[in-house]
Amino acid sequence: MEPPSPKFDQSGLVPCVIQDWRSGEVLTLAYMNEEALRLSRETGELHLFSRSRNELWHKGATSGNTQAVKALRFDCDSDAVLALVEPAGPACHTGERTCFFSGDMQPLPYEALPGLERTLKDRAEHPTEGSYTAKLLADPPFIGEKVQEEAEEVARAAREESDERVANEAADVLYHLTVLLKSRGLSLADAEEVLLGRRR
Amino acid sequence: MEPPSPKFDQSGLVPCVIQDWRSGEVLTLAYMNEEALRLSRETGELHLFSRSRNELWHKGATSGNTQAVKALRFDCDSDAVLALVEPAGPACHTGERTCFFSGDMQPLPYEALPGLERTLKDRAEHPTEGSYTAKLLADPPFIGEKVQEEAEEVARAAREESDERVANEAADVLYHLTVLLKSRGLSLADAEEVLLGRRR
Repeated sequence: MEPPSPKFDQSGLVPCVIQDWRSGEVLTLAYMNEEALRLSRETGELHLFSRSRNELWHKGATSGNTQAVKALRFDCDSDAVLALVEPAGPACHTGERTCFFSGDMQPLPYEALPGLERTLKDRAEHPTEGSYTAKLLADPPFIGEKVQEEAEEVARAAREESDERVANEAADVLYHLTVLLKSRGLSLADAEEVLLGRRR
Repeated sequence: MEPPSPKFDQSGLVPCVIQDWRSGEVLTLAYMNEEALRLSRETGELHLFSRSRNELWHKGATSGNTQAVKALRFDCDSDAVLALVEPAGPACHTGERTCFFSGDMQPLPYEALPGLERTLKDRAEHPTEGSYTAKLLADPPFIGEKVQEEAEEVARAAREESDERVANEAADVLYHLTVLLKSRGLSLADAEEVLLGRRR
């Protein structure tokens, strides 16, 4: 069976939204021609078409910041592609993680946990004297105790406290659970993949 | 100060990626002209330009499925917009939640928790006899105890068990914490907003 194909416009191109498959962050809006789509499928690395250079573009071929293709989706009109990727480095030629770095940049709910994981990675790589987070990260048994304490508190809040207290205590559990995973070299995505496996 | 403005192409349009600000899901790729951008800012509801109808398009004006604009971002070349929205209903004219519903549709890590929340919402609205989840959802004190049990197990795993066990037990904590929040009429986004508030 032929894999699904989008409609290419009169220039032979289709817009392609590039999204990080772990964090959900939108990285870039780019374009594909038929060859770029074929090569993305065949090689497992994202290929695009550069409109400014008017040529096929193997993303990251020069910078090393390739993007492994995890899924290719198409929209209801078949005139847009959504490429879900695992980036090897920053998506943007400026060195920013995403090309969408101007405008209203306050962090949004879906960005909270990936943002926390980036902060933890930074603390682990550049520990500062007396940092509470660095102390937790170095001590899985201790962070395990913290998760238990926070679980007790969210349970109490669920029983008898306000919505605001429940949300606050749930945030504490999420924070400490994320640190626990990181202390063992794991990420939330590892736990999320377990959840997905149970649904299948 | 003038708000940032993207570059509109020779047709006066700029592509706009529309993303759910809570779940991170990419909903639609559409286009804006200058008026659509201005009205999106002024009204707080997403306005687009329909290329097929060649007219301004107040998203959801007919269907009721409007999208509240939470943030507008621009890419490094200023030739694409990222609109982060809270959708009032399905984004797609087919009734699908997102327009990107064909191709490789296996769920990805970032979709695990939003997907779990949708399942819980469905179970709460359509409870089936003897459903374990429905039982949990109706009983915040009981689900609180479950969160504590799972926290003990993840703490033990962090101390002395394999990475696989840690990821599995962390998944159990995430699952039960999500149910706990839902049992109190809250969502993970409520806890995520707390985390974001602490970072600011």
